[in-house]
This record gives sequence, C-alpha cells and structure tokens, in this order.
Amino acid sequence: MDEVIADTVAEHLVRYNRDYSGNITKEDLRGKWIWDVVSIDRHPRLEEYLRSDDFFDVLDVIPDAQRVLKKLQQQFEVFIASAAMEVPTSFNAKYRWLERHFPTIPATHIVFCGDKGILRADYLIDDNPRQLRRFSGTGILYDAPHNAAVTGFRRVHNWLEIESLFLSDIK
Amino acid sequence: MDEVIADTVAEHLVRYNRDYSGNITKEDLRGKWIWDVVSIDRHPRLEEYLRSDDFFDVLDVIPDAQRVLKKLQQQFEVFIASAAMEVPTSFNAKYRWLERHFPTIPATHIVFCGDKGILRADYLIDDNPRQLRRFSGTGILYDAPHNAAVTGFRRVHNWLEIESLFLSDIK
Repeated sequence: MDEVIADTVAEHLVRYNRDYSGNITKEDLRGKWIWDVVSIDRHPRLEEYLRSDDFFDVLDVIPDAQRVLKKLQQQFEVFIASAAMEVPTSFNAKYRWLERHFPTIPATHIVFCGDKGILRADYLIDDNPRQLRRFSGTGILYDAPHNAAVTGFRRVHNWLEIESLFLSDIK
Repeated sequence: MDEVIADTVAEHLVRYNRDYSGNITKEDLRGKWIWDVVSIDRHPRLEEYLRSDDFFDVLDVIPDAQRVLKKLQQQFEVFIASAAMEVPTSFNAKYRWLERHFPTIPATHIVFCGDKGILRADYLIDDNPRQLRRFSGTGILYDAPHNAAVTGFRRVHNWLEIESLFLSDIK
C-alpha cells in the first residue's frame, strides 16, 4: 500500500517541511529513508505523523494505480496487502482510504499483516525488499527513494510499467 | 481467532440473554449460527454487539489456547489470522485483545484478512468451513455449534486435541 498505491513519502515531506521549516524533496531522499536524512531525535513529530488520525486519510493515490489495478482485476485476482501491523493505530484510516480510493477491491481482498511471507500469491509488488525476500512467489520491486541501491528484483518505476508487464498483450 | 482462541459465542449469548431476557445456551445452537436461532429483525442489537467498542475487549480466551499456542511456537512458526475485514470497526479491539492475551505472538505474525485463501501455511485451524475450503494447505475444523454438520475436515473439539495432534511426540 504505502509507496505503491499511497503516496506516504509526499505527505511526510509536506508535514516535515511545514513543521520544521524544511525544504526536503523526494530527490534528496535518493537511496535513503527519510529517517536517514533527518534525525528523529531532533524532529520527534516525524514519527508522530504516522500515528496521527488524519495522516492516512489525506494521502494521494500514486498516479495510474486506480486505473491499472482495475484493469488487472479483469485478468487476475488482486489483493491489497499492507504491512499495517507496524502502525496498529492506522487500521481504520487505512481501511477508509482503501474503501474511498479503491472501491473495486472488496473487503475480502484486503490484508493487514506484518510479515508478507504469509501471503500465497504469484506476484507481490512492494517497495520493501525485506518483504519481497520473505515472499515465496515472484517479487517485483516498486521503485522508492529508499530502495534505489537494491538489486535482485525486477524493478518497476510506475504503474504504466506494471500495466505493460502484466497486460502488454491485451492493451 | 473467533471461536478458536476467543469465545465470541459466549459473549454474544451473555448480551443477548441480558438484553432480551433470553435463556439460550451453547447447546441450543448445535448445528446453527446464532442468527438462525433468533431473528435479527426482531433483535437488532444482536448485530450491533459486534460493532460495539467493548465487545472484543471482554472476550474470554478459549481454554488451553494460550498454553498450547506458546508450546506450538517452539516447533512451528505460528500466525494468528482473523477474518477481521467482516467487521472493520473491530481492528483496534482485536489487536489489543491479542496483545493482552497472546503476548508471545509478535505483531509481524498477526494477519487481518477477509478471504483466508490468501494465506500460505501448512495448516489452518478454523471454525469456518468456507475459509478452510479456500485454504491451500491442510484445513483443521475447530468444532463450533454452527459447523456441527460439516464433514470433510479433521475436526478438533478443544486445544488439548490440537496439542496431541501436533505435539504428541514431544509431550
């Protein structure tokens, strides 16, 4: 979910730059997590953002994710799996966000988990290499600033690439 | 989770009997869901119980579940998967309940899902035959009033039987 269909990094930067008069851009994060660039100790609100009620509510949808996911559903059984257990207070907001932005995904096909090794699926599209390594099917790495140096997975940079990868013959 | 480690039926009956001056016991439910025995239309609060904030908080633990699960963790990788998407308002209460009663299960090994066909595991212990049919590993039916007539799965009636089944050689 985060960084693949929901733009959490953008919202983190908006809040950080607002609260600490910063000027960090996504480009500044290349190869790093936001926590590597700014010290949590000196910017405690950075971690609080994730726990605030409205953080997940306001996240933008990653471009083309809605259209391509809907198209994928015609050919594949699609589940959305979020590592929601890392921030248990986010359950309700994440669920509401999915209902609002991805109404074609039924509740039966939403999974809140911790370790994605528990998923039985052919493909997992994820920005987190740790999750892809635990996954038993084919892992596809969704490009994000923090995973720039990661190798060993097919990398996609946007949903148009996912569309070509899975649906090229029926476009 | 429900009916396997958490006694939701008992709490349903307590509330129903209290609010409607009823006298229904678990035995009365043999072969049925509670919804088959009492009409939801005439007892609207029955459905509301599941959505109330404190319902999942007060559930009793099914006898022996804590001890046996902890013992299973020495031999197996144990996940707790709950069909929580059926009652999305229950996420927080369910998570708190698990933290309190099953502290040895880490957050990484908790899954809130809808369709348990998405789980990759060797065994699934569940009271719901619909979930077991979708599951790709070996399904084990945990006895519950509503599944009395179900066949096709190995049935266990309590956690002592689960202990024998999985740990008989190391007891």
